[in-house]
Amino acid sequence: MQESGADFKLHPQLEADTFPVARLALNDVLLINDSRYVWCILVPRLPNLSELHDLPAEQRARMHDEVDSVSVALKNFTNAYKMNVAALGNMVEQLHVHVIARKKGDAAWPGPVWGVGVAEPYSTKNADALIYNLRNVIS
Amino acid sequence: MQESGADFKLHPQLEADTFPVARLALNDVLLINDSRYVWCILVPRLPNLSELHDLPAEQRARMHDEVDSVSVALKNFTNAYKMNVAALGNMVEQLHVHVIARKKGDAAWPGPVWGVGVAEPYSTKNADALIYNLRNVIS
Repeated sequence: MQESGADFKLHPQLEADTFPVARLALNDVLLINDSRYVWCILVPRLPNLSELHDLPAEQRARMHDEVDSVSVALKNFTNAYKMNVAALGNMVEQLHVHVIARKKGDAAWPGPVWGVGVAEPYSTKNADALIYNLRNVIS
Repeated sequence: MQESGADFKLHPQLEADTFPVARLALNDVLLINDSRYVWCILVPRLPNLSELHDLPAEQRARMHDEVDSVSVALKNFTNAYKMNVAALGNMVEQLHVHVIARKKGDAAWPGPVWGVGVAEPYSTKNADALIYNLRNVIS
């Protein structure tokens, strides 16, 4: 059964920074509009969550299953050297988990990606192609 | 049952940067020696892990239970504004999960803590006192 998210609304900042990729049972998977990295966020369609530890018990396993599933998919798809998985939320409190495919020599390597340089938006063509491919590997 | 970790050895960099705090069923909880934040890492006592998604199925729930438990404990203990939970591992590949109590106005706020400024080590007295208190709230 999918979480319907009747009381859930995606934070406008997350909406502005991303493209929708996939709707999993619990989470929406969104692609961050920064072509320097293949960087997704997972946002559970549940209202009023900010901390991972606030997830209701019955959704915790599903959350981690979906994060792991996207992490494996992005690692294989990009041939990443290391996956970065993080729930920070200092700026946008709505619970969202970053899953970022990292490569040696990428724009922030070996540091974390947040706050490094300026995002490089995808062209429409490149965004469409990447999202098409991501939809095939994320399920 | 505790993971005995017969084939597990803590990475020397993680050992150098931390104080031991608690031994949970799966993870060692270590305090990062940087007094600017209350910042722990959890290291599962299992060999040859670098990605969260590499955890054996039978240990995944335990891993997330212990991360959540430490996150709640540190949030309550420090009255943190937001917890940051992250598995990065770009520099030290041995799987370790950061659990960091963040406050508005702390040394890196609202950015992430990694790579910001220079760590400010605890005095022996302050480290001992904090570790004593953390042992009382982490279990």
